[in-house]
Amino acid sequence: MRKSFRWALAAVALLSTASFAATPTTPNEVIAAARASEWARFDPASLLVLDLAASRRVVIALASDFAPEHVANIRILARNGWFDRSFVVRVQDNYVVQWGGADDKKPLPPGIKAGLPAEYDRPASGLQLTKLQHRDSFAPVVGLHDAFPVAEAAGRAWAPHCYGMVGVGRDLSPDTGSGAELYAVIGHAPRALDRNIAVVGRVLAGFEHLTSLPRGEGNLGFYTDPKQRVPITRVRLAADMPPAERPAFEWLRPESDSFALWVHLRANRRDSFFIRPAGAVDLCNALPPVRSVPQG
Amino acid sequence: MRKSFRWALAAVALLSTASFAATPTTPNEVIAAARASEWARFDPASLLVLDLAASRRVVIALASDFAPEHVANIRILARNGWFDRSFVVRVQDNYVVQWGGADDKKPLPPGIKAGLPAEYDRPASGLQLTKLQHRDSFAPVVGLHDAFPVAEAAGRAWAPHCYGMVGVGRDLSPDTGSGAELYAVIGHAPRALDRNIAVVGRVLAGFEHLTSLPRGEGNLGFYTDPKQRVPITRVRLAADMPPAERPAFEWLRPESDSFALWVHLRANRRDSFFIRPAGAVDLCNALPPVRSVPQG
Repeated sequence: MRKSFRWALAAVALLSTASFAATPTTPNEVIAAARASEWARFDPASLLVLDLAASRRVVIALASDFAPEHVANIRILARNGWFDRSFVVRVQDNYVVQWGGADDKKPLPPGIKAGLPAEYDRPASGLQLTKLQHRDSFAPVVGLHDAFPVAEAAGRAWAPHCYGMVGVGRDLSPDTGSGAELYAVIGHAPRALDRNIAVVGRVLAGFEHLTSLPRGEGNLGFYTDPKQRVPITRVRLAADMPPAERPAFEWLRPESDSFALWVHLRANRRDSFFIRPAGAVDLCNALPPVRSVPQG
Repeated sequence: MRKSFRWALAAVALLSTASFAATPTTPNEVIAAARASEWARFDPASLLVLDLAASRRVVIALASDFAPEHVANIRILARNGWFDRSFVVRVQDNYVVQWGGADDKKPLPPGIKAGLPAEYDRPASGLQLTKLQHRDSFAPVVGLHDAFPVAEAAGRAWAPHCYGMVGVGRDLSPDTGSGAELYAVIGHAPRALDRNIAVVGRVLAGFEHLTSLPRGEGNLGFYTDPKQRVPITRVRLAADMPPAERPAFEWLRPESDSFALWVHLRANRRDSFFIRPAGAVDLCNALPPVRSVPQG
Protein backbone atom coordinates (compact mmCIF):
# COMPACT_ATOMS: atom_id res chain seq x y z
CA MET A 1 0.00 0.00 0.00
CA ARG A 2 1.86 3.04 -1.20
CA LYS A 3 -1.21 5.19 -1.45
CA SER A 4 -0.36 7.51 1.41
CA PHE A 5 2.98 8.26 -0.08
CA ARG A 6 1.69 8.53 -3.60
CA TRP A 7 -0.81 11.08 -2.39
CA ALA A 8 1.98 12.91 -0.60
CA LEU A 9 4.36 12.81 -3.51
CA ALA A 10 1.80 14.01 -5.98
CA ALA A 11 1.25 17.12 -3.89
CA VAL A 12 4.95 17.65 -3.39
CA ALA A 13 5.55 17.37 -7.11
CA LEU A 14 3.05 20.15 -7.63
CA LEU A 15 4.79 22.28 -5.06
CA SER A 16 8.22 21.78 -6.50
CA THR A 17 7.39 22.26 -10.13
CA ALA A 18 9.49 25.06 -11.53
CA SER A 19 7.12 25.92 -14.32
CA PHE A 20 4.74 28.28 -12.58
CA ALA A 21 6.48 31.43 -13.65
CA ALA A 22 3.51 31.79 -15.98
CA THR A 23 0.28 31.47 -13.96
CA PRO A 24 0.18 29.71 -10.62
CA THR A 25 -2.47 26.99 -10.55
CA THR A 26 -2.38 25.97 -6.88
CA PRO A 27 -2.64 28.02 -3.67
CA ASN A 28 0.93 27.16 -2.69
CA GLU A 29 2.24 28.21 -6.10
CA VAL A 30 0.52 31.56 -5.65
CA ILE A 31 2.28 32.09 -2.33
CA ALA A 32 5.62 31.14 -3.81
CA ALA A 33 5.12 33.53 -6.75
CA ALA A 34 3.79 36.54 -4.80
CA ARG A 35 5.76 39.75 -5.26
CA ALA A 36 7.74 41.19 -2.34
CA SER A 37 5.45 44.24 -2.31
CA GLU A 38 2.45 42.01 -1.66
CA TRP A 39 3.83 40.98 1.73
CA ALA A 40 3.68 43.18 4.82
CA ARG A 41 5.89 42.88 7.89
CA PHE A 42 4.43 42.42 11.38
CA ASP A 43 5.46 45.12 13.84
CA PRO A 44 7.91 43.49 16.32
CA ALA A 45 6.00 45.17 19.15
CA SER A 46 2.97 43.14 18.07
CA LEU A 47 4.68 39.74 18.05
CA LEU A 48 4.30 37.82 21.30
CA VAL A 49 6.91 35.07 21.56
CA LEU A 50 6.18 32.14 23.90
CA ASP A 51 9.05 29.80 24.66
CA LEU A 52 8.34 26.36 26.07
CA ALA A 53 10.92 23.81 27.15
CA ALA A 54 12.94 21.93 24.53
CA SER A 55 13.22 24.88 22.11
CA ARG A 56 9.52 24.89 21.32
CA ARG A 57 8.53 28.41 20.28
CA VAL A 58 5.04 29.78 19.59
CA VAL A 59 4.65 33.19 17.92
CA ILE A 60 1.42 35.17 18.17
CA ALA A 61 0.51 38.36 16.27
CA LEU A 62 -1.34 40.77 18.58
CA ALA A 63 -4.49 42.34 17.18
CA SER A 64 -4.31 45.96 18.37
CA ASP A 65 -6.98 47.02 15.87
CA PHE A 66 -9.54 44.79 17.58
CA ALA A 67 -8.79 44.96 21.31
CA PRO A 68 -6.26 47.77 21.90
CA GLU A 69 -6.64 48.02 25.66
CA HIS A 70 -6.37 44.28 26.20
CA VAL A 71 -3.31 44.21 23.91
CA ALA A 72 -1.78 47.08 25.90
CA ASN A 73 -2.13 45.01 29.07
CA ILE A 74 -0.58 41.97 27.39
CA ARG A 75 2.41 44.06 26.26
CA ILE A 76 2.94 45.25 29.85
CA LEU A 77 2.69 41.68 31.14
CA ALA A 78 5.25 40.48 28.56
CA ARG A 79 7.63 43.39 29.23
CA ASN A 80 7.53 42.61 32.95
CA GLY A 81 8.18 38.91 32.44
CA TRP A 82 4.84 38.17 34.07
CA PHE A 83 4.12 35.09 31.96
CA ASP A 84 7.58 33.61 32.58
CA ARG A 85 7.32 30.34 34.51
CA SER A 86 3.56 30.23 33.95
CA PHE A 87 1.75 27.17 32.62
CA VAL A 88 -0.59 25.77 30.04
CA VAL A 89 -3.41 24.75 32.38
CA ARG A 90 -6.18 23.59 30.08
CA VAL A 91 -6.45 21.68 26.80
CA GLN A 92 -10.00 20.82 25.73
CA ASP A 93 -10.26 18.81 22.54
CA ASN A 94 -11.86 20.57 19.57
CA TYR A 95 -12.05 23.76 21.62
CA VAL A 96 -9.21 25.64 23.30
CA VAL A 97 -5.78 25.51 24.90
CA GLN A 98 -5.40 28.00 27.75
CA TRP A 99 -2.40 29.39 29.63
CA GLY A 100 -1.27 31.93 32.23
CA GLY A 101 -3.45 33.29 34.98
CA ALA A 102 -3.42 30.23 37.18
CA ASP A 103 -1.39 31.53 40.08
CA ASP A 104 -3.31 33.43 42.72
CA LYS A 105 -0.14 34.51 44.43
CA LYS A 106 1.42 36.36 41.53
CA PRO A 107 0.44 40.05 41.58
CA LEU A 108 -0.04 41.79 38.26
CA PRO A 109 2.68 44.31 37.37
CA PRO A 110 2.21 48.08 37.69
CA GLY A 111 0.43 49.74 34.78
CA ILE A 112 -2.02 46.90 34.18
CA LYS A 113 -5.53 48.27 33.81
CA ALA A 114 -8.39 46.52 35.56
CA GLY A 115 -12.01 46.73 34.48
CA LEU A 116 -11.19 46.96 30.79
CA PRO A 117 -13.94 47.86 28.35
CA ALA A 118 -15.61 44.93 26.60
CA GLU A 119 -13.60 45.10 23.37
CA TYR A 120 -15.66 42.32 21.82
CA ASP A 121 -16.49 44.22 18.66
CA ARG A 122 -15.70 47.65 17.20
CA PRO A 123 -16.98 50.05 14.56
CA ALA A 124 -16.65 48.51 11.12
CA SER A 125 -15.43 51.82 9.76
CA GLY A 126 -11.69 52.26 10.07
CA LEU A 127 -10.81 48.72 9.08
CA GLN A 128 -9.44 48.09 5.61
CA LEU A 129 -11.76 45.19 4.83
CA THR A 130 -11.10 42.92 1.86
CA LYS A 131 -14.43 41.16 1.54
CA LEU A 132 -14.84 37.46 0.86
CA GLN A 133 -17.60 36.69 -1.62
CA HIS A 134 -18.75 33.52 0.14
CA ARG A 135 -21.56 32.91 2.60
CA ASP A 136 -20.87 32.77 6.31
CA SER A 137 -23.13 31.06 8.85
CA PHE A 138 -22.87 33.92 11.34
CA ALA A 139 -22.45 37.29 9.67
CA PRO A 140 -23.72 38.95 6.49
CA VAL A 141 -20.23 40.27 5.64
CA VAL A 142 -16.87 38.60 6.19
CA GLY A 143 -13.37 39.35 5.01
CA LEU A 144 -9.83 40.14 6.05
CA HIS A 145 -8.08 43.11 7.63
CA ASP A 146 -4.29 42.84 7.58
CA ALA A 147 -3.54 39.28 8.76
CA PHE A 148 -6.85 38.87 10.59
CA PRO A 149 -10.27 37.47 9.76
CA VAL A 150 -13.19 39.88 10.20
CA ALA A 151 -16.94 39.44 10.48
CA GLU A 152 -19.24 42.42 10.18
CA ALA A 153 -22.90 43.10 10.93
CA ALA A 154 -24.87 46.32 11.33
CA GLY A 155 -21.84 48.58 11.39
CA ARG A 156 -19.88 46.53 13.94
CA ALA A 157 -16.87 44.32 13.22
CA TRP A 158 -15.01 41.64 15.16
CA ALA A 159 -12.31 39.02 14.74
CA PRO A 160 -13.97 35.58 14.72
CA HIS A 161 -12.80 32.55 16.68
CA CYS A 162 -11.02 30.72 13.86
CA TYR A 163 -8.49 27.94 14.48
CA GLY A 164 -5.40 29.56 15.97
CA MET A 165 -7.06 32.78 17.09
CA VAL A 166 -6.19 33.94 20.61
CA GLY A 167 -8.61 35.39 23.16
CA VAL A 168 -8.66 36.64 26.74
CA GLY A 169 -10.09 34.37 29.44
CA ARG A 170 -12.52 36.11 31.72
CA ASP A 171 -14.97 35.58 34.55
CA LEU A 172 -18.74 35.79 34.02
CA SER A 173 -18.75 39.58 34.13
CA PRO A 174 -17.50 41.15 30.88
CA ASP A 175 -15.04 43.53 32.57
CA THR A 176 -12.99 40.81 34.25
CA GLY A 177 -10.45 39.80 31.62
CA SER A 178 -7.05 41.42 32.19
CA GLY A 179 -5.05 39.65 29.50
CA ALA A 180 -3.11 37.59 32.05
CA GLU A 181 -5.03 34.50 31.01
CA LEU A 182 -5.11 33.64 27.32
CA TYR A 183 -6.48 30.83 25.19
CA ALA A 184 -6.20 29.76 21.56
CA VAL A 185 -8.70 27.85 19.44
CA ILE A 186 -7.64 24.27 18.61
CA GLY A 187 -10.75 22.95 16.86
CA HIS A 188 -13.53 23.80 14.50
CA ALA A 189 -14.20 27.51 14.96
CA PRO A 190 -16.37 27.98 18.10
CA ARG A 191 -18.04 31.06 16.67
CA ALA A 192 -20.56 31.19 19.53
CA LEU A 193 -17.71 32.84 21.47
CA ASP A 194 -17.55 35.70 18.93
CA ARG A 195 -18.49 39.08 20.46
CA ASN A 196 -18.46 37.52 23.92
CA ILE A 197 -14.71 37.68 24.56
CA ALA A 198 -11.85 39.96 23.55
CA VAL A 199 -9.93 38.42 20.67
CA VAL A 200 -6.35 39.64 20.86
CA GLY A 201 -4.28 37.73 18.35
CA ARG A 202 -3.50 34.98 15.89
CA VAL A 203 -0.93 32.23 16.23
CA LEU A 204 1.56 32.53 13.35
CA ALA A 205 4.01 29.72 14.08
CA GLY A 206 4.67 26.82 16.41
CA PHE A 207 1.01 26.16 17.13
CA GLU A 208 1.66 22.42 16.87
CA HIS A 209 3.47 22.68 20.23
CA LEU A 210 0.16 23.63 21.83
CA THR A 211 -2.33 21.69 19.71
CA SER A 212 -0.55 18.37 20.31
CA LEU A 213 -0.52 18.67 24.11
CA PRO A 214 -2.38 15.96 26.04
CA ARG A 215 -6.00 16.89 26.61
CA GLY A 216 -6.85 17.62 30.24
CA GLU A 217 -9.10 15.14 31.97
CA GLY A 218 -10.81 17.61 34.31
CA ASN A 219 -13.95 19.61 33.61
CA LEU A 220 -13.54 21.77 30.50
CA GLY A 221 -10.20 20.11 29.80
CA PHE A 222 -8.33 21.51 32.81
CA TYR A 223 -5.40 19.41 33.95
CA THR A 224 -6.35 17.79 37.23
CA ASP A 225 -2.82 17.30 38.55
CA PRO A 226 -0.55 20.38 38.69
CA LYS A 227 2.27 18.14 37.43
CA GLN A 228 0.46 17.81 34.09
CA ARG A 229 0.61 21.55 33.45
CA VAL A 230 3.05 22.50 30.69
CA PRO A 231 5.64 25.10 31.72
CA ILE A 232 6.05 28.27 29.67
CA THR A 233 9.64 29.32 30.12
CA ARG A 234 9.51 32.87 28.85
CA VAL A 235 7.14 35.23 27.05
CA ARG A 236 8.44 38.40 25.36
CA LEU A 237 7.54 40.84 22.66
CA ALA A 238 9.82 40.36 19.65
CA ALA A 239 10.67 44.08 19.91
CA ASP A 240 12.20 43.50 23.34
CA MET A 241 14.38 40.55 22.33
CA PRO A 242 18.00 40.83 21.21
CA PRO A 243 18.03 41.27 17.41
CA ALA A 244 19.72 37.91 16.85
CA GLU A 245 16.93 36.03 18.66
CA ARG A 246 14.04 38.07 17.36
CA PRO A 247 11.67 36.27 14.97
CA ALA A 248 10.16 38.17 12.03
CA PHE A 249 7.05 37.37 10.04
CA GLU A 250 5.12 38.71 7.07
CA TRP A 251 1.56 38.27 5.90
CA LEU A 252 0.25 38.22 2.36
CA ARG A 253 -1.76 41.43 2.14
CA PRO A 254 -5.44 40.60 1.59
CA GLU A 255 -5.78 43.57 -0.75
CA SER A 256 -3.09 42.14 -3.08
CA ASP A 257 -3.70 40.41 -6.42
CA SER A 258 -1.93 37.31 -5.16
CA PHE A 259 -4.25 37.01 -2.16
CA ALA A 260 -7.28 37.29 -4.44
CA LEU A 261 -5.90 34.52 -6.66
CA TRP A 262 -4.99 32.42 -3.62
CA VAL A 263 -8.56 32.59 -2.31
CA HIS A 264 -9.92 31.86 -5.77
CA LEU A 265 -7.77 28.74 -6.04
CA ARG A 266 -8.59 27.66 -2.48
CA ALA A 267 -12.25 27.74 -3.52
CA ASN A 268 -11.61 26.21 -6.94
CA ARG A 269 -8.85 23.66 -6.51
CA ARG A 270 -7.22 22.57 -9.75
CA ASP A 271 -4.53 20.36 -8.19
CA SER A 272 -4.71 16.94 -9.84
CA PHE A 273 -6.12 15.37 -6.68
CA PHE A 274 -9.33 17.39 -6.83
CA ILE A 275 -12.20 16.27 -9.02
CA ARG A 276 -14.95 18.65 -7.97
CA PRO A 277 -13.98 22.12 -6.71
CA ALA A 278 -15.99 23.33 -3.71
CA GLY A 279 -16.70 26.69 -5.34
CA ALA A 280 -16.44 28.40 -1.96
CA VAL A 281 -14.22 28.89 1.06
CA ASP A 282 -15.04 29.34 4.70
CA LEU A 283 -13.60 32.51 6.26
CA CYS A 284 -11.65 30.41 8.76
CA ASN A 285 -9.93 28.55 5.93
CA ALA A 286 -8.94 31.80 4.23
CA LEU A 287 -6.74 33.53 6.80
CA PRO A 288 -3.93 35.41 5.03
CA PRO A 289 -0.86 33.22 4.56
CA VAL A 290 2.10 34.13 6.77
CA ARG A 291 5.79 33.36 6.45
CA SER A 292 8.88 33.55 8.59
CA VAL A 293 11.51 35.92 7.21
CA PRO A 294 15.05 36.84 8.27
CA GLN A 295 15.29 39.69 10.74
CA GLY A 296 16.48 43.04 9.38
CA MET B 1 -5.53 34.88 39.31
CA ARG B 2 -8.44 32.54 39.76
CA LYS B 3 -10.14 33.48 36.53
CA SER B 4 -9.56 30.23 34.72
CA PHE B 5 -11.07 28.26 37.53
CA ARG B 6 -13.89 30.67 38.09
CA TRP B 7 -14.82 30.31 34.44
CA ALA B 8 -14.61 26.55 34.79
CA LEU B 9 -16.63 26.42 37.95
CA ALA B 10 -19.37 28.62 36.62
CA ALA B 11 -19.93 26.23 33.75
CA VAL B 12 -19.75 23.20 36.00
CA ALA B 13 -22.30 24.73 38.33
CA LEU B 14 -24.67 25.06 35.40
CA LEU B 15 -24.12 21.43 34.48
CA SER B 16 -24.71 20.13 37.95
CA THR B 17 -27.77 22.16 38.81
CA ALA B 18 -30.58 19.79 39.70
CA SER B 19 -33.35 22.20 38.85
CA PHE B 20 -33.72 21.64 35.12
CA ALA B 21 -36.58 19.20 35.39
CA ALA B 22 -38.66 22.11 34.09
CA THR B 23 -37.10 23.49 30.91
CA PRO B 24 -33.42 22.97 30.11
CA THR B 25 -31.65 26.26 29.41
CA THR B 26 -28.25 25.02 28.27
CA PRO B 27 -27.24 22.50 25.58
CA ASN B 28 -25.80 20.13 28.20
CA GLU B 29 -28.98 20.28 30.25
CA VAL B 30 -30.96 19.30 27.15
CA ILE B 31 -28.77 16.24 26.66
CA ALA B 32 -29.14 15.25 30.30
CA ALA B 33 -32.92 15.64 30.14
CA ALA B 34 -33.52 13.88 26.79
CA ARG B 35 -35.94 10.97 26.93
CA ALA B 36 -34.67 7.43 26.33
CA SER B 37 -36.76 7.20 23.15
CA GLU B 38 -34.89 10.16 21.68
CA TRP B 39 -31.62 8.20 21.64
CA ALA B 40 -30.81 5.57 19.03
CA ARG B 41 -28.26 2.78 19.40
CA PHE B 42 -25.41 2.36 16.88
CA ASP B 43 -25.34 -1.05 15.19
CA PRO B 44 -22.34 -2.95 16.66
CA ALA B 45 -21.42 -4.00 13.10
CA SER B 46 -20.97 -0.29 12.34
CA LEU B 47 -18.66 0.50 15.25
CA LEU B 48 -14.98 0.29 14.38
CA VAL B 49 -12.86 -0.02 17.51
CA LEU B 50 -9.18 1.01 17.29
CA ASP B 51 -6.95 0.07 20.18
CA LEU B 52 -3.62 1.82 20.64
CA ALA B 53 -1.02 1.02 23.26
CA ALA B 54 -1.66 1.97 26.91
CA SER B 55 -5.41 1.30 26.84
CA ARG B 56 -6.13 4.13 24.47
CA ARG B 57 -9.27 3.30 22.50
CA VAL B 58 -10.83 5.18 19.58
CA VAL B 59 -14.37 4.32 18.43
CA ILE B 60 -15.62 5.23 14.95
CA ALA B 61 -19.20 4.94 13.64
CA LEU B 62 -19.15 3.69 10.04
CA ALA B 63 -21.35 5.58 7.58
CA SER B 64 -22.88 2.84 5.43
CA ASP B 65 -25.52 5.22 4.10
CA PHE B 66 -22.87 7.37 2.47
CA ALA B 67 -20.19 4.98 1.21
CA PRO B 68 -21.54 1.42 1.46
CA GLU B 69 -18.93 -0.28 -0.69
CA HIS B 70 -16.03 1.41 1.06
CA VAL B 71 -17.56 0.50 4.42
CA ALA B 72 -17.96 -3.11 3.27
CA ASN B 73 -14.23 -3.22 2.52
CA ILE B 74 -13.38 -1.72 5.91
CA ARG B 75 -15.52 -4.37 7.65
CA ILE B 76 -13.62 -7.12 5.82
CA LEU B 77 -10.29 -5.54 6.74
CA ALA B 78 -11.32 -5.35 10.41
CA ARG B 79 -12.67 -8.93 10.50
CA ASN B 80 -9.40 -10.18 9.06
CA GLY B 81 -7.28 -8.25 11.54
CA TRP B 82 -5.69 -6.41 8.65
CA PHE B 83 -5.24 -3.15 10.58
CA ASP B 84 -3.65 -4.92 13.57
CA ARG B 85 -0.05 -3.81 14.03
CA SER B 86 -0.52 -0.97 11.55
CA PHE B 87 0.47 2.63 12.30
CA VAL B 88 -0.60 6.22 12.43
CA VAL B 89 1.73 7.56 9.74
CA ARG B 90 0.70 11.17 9.30
CA VAL B 91 -0.47 14.01 11.56
CA GLN B 92 -0.82 17.37 9.83
CA ASP B 93 -1.85 20.23 12.09
CA ASN B 94 -5.28 21.74 11.44
CA TYR B 95 -5.91 19.06 8.82
CA VAL B 96 -5.80 15.29 9.24
CA VAL B 97 -4.41 12.30 11.11
CA GLN B 98 -3.93 9.26 8.86
CA TRP B 99 -3.36 5.57 9.56
CA GLY B 100 -3.10 2.13 7.97
CA GLY B 101 -2.03 1.50 4.41
CA ALA B 102 1.64 2.14 4.87
CA ASP B 103 2.97 -1.35 4.39
CA ASP B 104 3.60 -2.41 0.81
CA LYS B 105 4.25 -5.98 1.84
CA LYS B 106 0.92 -6.69 3.50
CA PRO B 107 -1.53 -8.14 0.97
CA LEU B 108 -5.19 -7.21 1.33
CA PRO B 109 -7.45 -10.03 2.55
CA PRO B 110 -9.75 -12.01 0.22
CA GLY B 111 -13.07 -10.37 -0.54
CA ILE B 112 -11.70 -6.82 -0.71
CA LYS B 113 -13.00 -5.08 -3.79
CA ALA B 114 -10.63 -3.02 -5.90
CA GLY B 115 -11.71 -0.19 -8.19
CA LEU B 116 -14.56 0.89 -5.95
CA PRO B 117 -17.07 3.40 -7.29
CA ALA B 118 -16.47 7.01 -6.32
CA GLU B 119 -18.91 7.13 -3.39
CA TYR B 120 -18.29 10.82 -2.85
CA ASP B 121 -21.93 11.82 -2.92
CA ARG B 122 -25.27 10.05 -3.30
CA PRO B 123 -28.90 10.80 -4.17
CA ALA B 124 -30.41 13.12 -1.58
CA SER B 125 -33.58 11.08 -1.62
CA GLY B 126 -33.52 8.16 0.79
CA LEU B 127 -31.87 10.07 3.62
CA GLN B 128 -33.99 11.20 6.54
CA LEU B 129 -32.70 14.77 6.59
CA THR B 130 -33.35 17.04 9.56
CA LYS B 131 -32.52 20.42 8.08
CA LEU B 132 -30.58 23.13 9.86
CA GLN B 133 -31.99 26.60 9.35
CA HIS B 134 -28.61 28.32 9.18
CA ARG B 135 -26.47 29.37 6.25
CA ASP B 136 -23.60 27.20 5.10
CA SER B 137 -20.65 28.46 3.05
CA PHE B 138 -20.70 25.48 0.72
CA ALA B 139 -24.19 24.07 0.18
CA PRO B 140 -27.70 25.51 -0.06
CA VAL B 141 -29.10 22.83 2.27
CA VAL B 142 -27.45 21.27 5.33
CA GLY B 143 -28.71 19.05 8.10
CA LEU B 144 -28.35 15.75 9.87
CA HIS B 145 -29.10 12.13 9.01
CA ASP B 146 -28.80 9.78 11.98
CA ALA B 147 -25.53 10.72 13.69
CA PHE B 148 -24.01 12.29 10.59
CA PRO B 149 -23.82 15.78 9.10
CA VAL B 150 -25.19 16.15 5.57
CA ALA B 151 -24.82 18.77 2.87
CA GLU B 152 -27.12 18.76 -0.13
CA ALA B 153 -27.15 20.46 -3.52
CA ALA B 154 -29.08 19.76 -6.72
CA GLY B 155 -30.43 16.42 -5.59
CA ARG B 156 -27.09 15.06 -4.34
CA ALA B 157 -26.06 14.64 -0.71
CA TRP B 158 -22.77 13.99 1.05
CA ALA B 159 -21.22 13.87 4.52
CA PRO B 160 -18.99 16.95 4.95
CA HIS B 161 -15.46 16.94 6.36
CA CYS B 162 -16.28 18.14 9.88
CA TYR B 163 -13.87 17.73 12.80
CA GLY B 164 -13.75 14.03 13.61
CA MET B 165 -15.11 12.79 10.30
CA VAL B 166 -13.25 9.85 8.76
CA GLY B 167 -12.40 9.41 5.08
CA VAL B 168 -10.59 7.01 2.77
CA GLY B 169 -7.12 7.99 1.54
CA ARG B 170 -6.68 7.52 -2.16
CA ASP B 171 -4.32 8.09 -5.04
CA LEU B 172 -4.98 10.74 -7.69
CA SER B 173 -7.43 8.55 -9.58
CA PRO B 174 -10.86 8.37 -7.89
CA ASP B 175 -11.09 4.56 -7.99
CA THR B 176 -7.96 3.93 -5.95
CA GLY B 177 -9.12 4.06 -2.35
CA SER B 178 -9.68 0.60 -0.87
CA GLY B 179 -10.43 1.56 2.72
CA ALA B 180 -7.10 0.22 3.96
CA GLU B 181 -5.87 3.76 4.51
CA LEU B 182 -8.03 6.07 6.58
CA TYR B 183 -7.79 9.61 7.89
CA ALA B 184 -9.76 11.77 10.32
CA VAL B 185 -10.14 15.55 10.36
CA ILE B 186 -8.32 17.27 13.26
CA GLY B 187 -8.85 20.93 12.40
CA HIS B 188 -11.28 23.45 11.03
CA ALA B 189 -13.44 21.55 8.53
CA PRO B 190 -11.50 21.24 5.24
CA ARG B 191 -14.67 21.29 3.18
CA ALA B 192 -12.71 21.53 -0.08
CA LEU B 193 -12.29 17.75 0.33
CA ASP B 194 -16.08 17.23 0.26
CA ARG B 195 -17.24 15.24 -2.77
CA ASN B 196 -13.61 14.43 -3.61
CA ILE B 197 -13.13 11.52 -1.20
CA ALA B 198 -15.28 8.78 0.29
CA VAL B 199 -16.34 9.77 3.81
CA VAL B 200 -16.89 6.59 5.79
CA GLY B 201 -17.40 7.50 9.41
CA ARG B 202 -17.35 9.72 12.45
CA VAL B 203 -15.18 9.40 15.55
CA LEU B 204 -17.42 8.95 18.58
CA ALA B 205 -14.93 8.55 21.42
CA GLY B 206 -11.23 8.64 22.20
CA PHE B 207 -10.40 11.12 19.47
CA GLU B 208 -8.06 12.92 21.87
CA HIS B 209 -5.68 9.96 21.53
CA LEU B 210 -5.24 10.87 17.86
CA THR B 211 -5.61 14.64 17.93
CA SER B 212 -2.89 15.06 20.56
CA LEU B 213 -0.25 13.05 18.67
CA PRO B 214 2.92 14.90 17.68
CA ARG B 215 2.60 16.53 14.28
CA GLY B 216 4.79 14.93 11.60
CA GLU B 217 7.65 17.02 10.31
CA GLY B 218 7.69 15.66 6.78
CA ASN B 219 5.71 16.95 3.83
CA LEU B 220 1.97 16.95 4.54
CA GLY B 221 2.68 15.97 8.13
CA PHE B 222 4.05 12.48 7.44
CA TYR B 223 6.40 11.17 10.09
CA THR B 224 9.89 11.15 8.63
CA ASP B 225 11.31 8.45 10.87
CA PRO B 226 9.44 5.09 11.02
CA LYS B 227 10.10 5.10 14.78
CA GLN B 228 7.78 8.10 15.15
CA ARG B 229 4.81 6.17 13.78
CA VAL B 230 2.22 5.32 16.40
CA PRO B 231 1.33 1.61 16.60
CA ILE B 232 -2.29 0.52 16.34
CA THR B 233 -2.55 -2.68 18.30
CA ARG B 234 -5.86 -4.01 17.09
CA VAL B 235 -8.87 -2.90 15.03
CA ARG B 236 -12.18 -4.77 15.26
CA LEU B 237 -15.86 -4.25 14.70
CA ALA B 238 -17.70 -4.07 18.03
CA ALA B 239 -19.96 -6.87 16.74
CA ASP B 240 -16.97 -9.21 16.56
CA MET B 241 -15.68 -8.50 20.06
CA PRO B 242 -16.56 -10.54 23.15
CA PRO B 243 -19.67 -8.99 24.73
CA ALA B 244 -17.80 -7.93 27.85
CA GLU B 245 -15.29 -5.87 25.84
CA ARG B 246 -17.73 -4.47 23.34
CA PRO B 247 -18.38 -0.70 23.53
CA ALA B 248 -21.88 0.61 22.89
CA PHE B 249 -22.94 4.11 21.89
CA GLU B 250 -26.10 6.06 21.19
CA TRP B 251 -26.80 9.27 19.30
CA LEU B 252 -29.44 11.86 20.01
CA ARG B 253 -31.82 11.50 17.08
CA PRO B 254 -31.81 14.70 15.00
CA GLU B 255 -35.56 14.35 14.41
CA SER B 256 -36.23 14.49 18.19
CA ASP B 257 -37.58 17.47 20.12
CA SER B 258 -34.51 17.45 22.33
CA PHE B 259 -32.17 17.73 19.35
CA ALA B 260 -34.14 20.70 18.04
CA LEU B 261 -33.90 22.40 21.42
CA TRP B 262 -30.20 21.53 21.70
CA VAL B 263 -29.48 23.20 18.35
CA HIS B 264 -31.59 26.19 19.30
CA LEU B 265 -29.64 26.65 22.53
CA ARG B 266 -26.29 26.11 20.78
CA ALA B 267 -27.26 29.00 18.50
CA ASN B 268 -28.74 31.08 21.32
CA ARG B 269 -26.63 30.47 24.40
CA ARG B 270 -28.26 31.53 27.64
CA ASP B 271 -25.51 30.26 29.97
CA SER B 272 -24.46 33.11 32.25
CA PHE B 273 -21.11 33.43 30.47
CA PHE B 274 -22.68 34.50 27.18
CA ILE B 275 -23.65 38.12 26.61
CA ARG B 276 -24.56 38.12 22.95
CA PRO B 277 -25.91 34.88 21.41
CA ALA B 278 -24.56 34.10 17.94
CA GLY B 279 -28.05 33.46 16.57
CA ALA B 280 -26.67 30.68 14.36
CA VAL B 281 -24.69 27.47 14.36
CA ASP B 282 -22.30 26.02 11.84
CA LEU B 283 -23.21 22.51 10.64
CA CYS B 284 -19.88 21.19 11.93
CA ASN B 285 -20.68 22.45 15.42
CA ALA B 286 -24.08 20.76 15.40
CA LEU B 287 -23.27 17.07 15.00
CA PRO B 288 -25.74 14.98 17.01
CA PRO B 289 -24.51 14.38 20.57
CA VAL B 290 -23.38 10.83 21.29
CA ARG B 291 -22.96 8.95 24.55
CA SER B 292 -21.40 5.76 25.74
CA VAL B 293 -23.91 3.31 27.21
CA PRO B 294 -23.64 -0.09 28.90
CA GLN B 295 -23.71 -3.06 26.56
CA GLY B 296 -26.92 -5.04 26.49
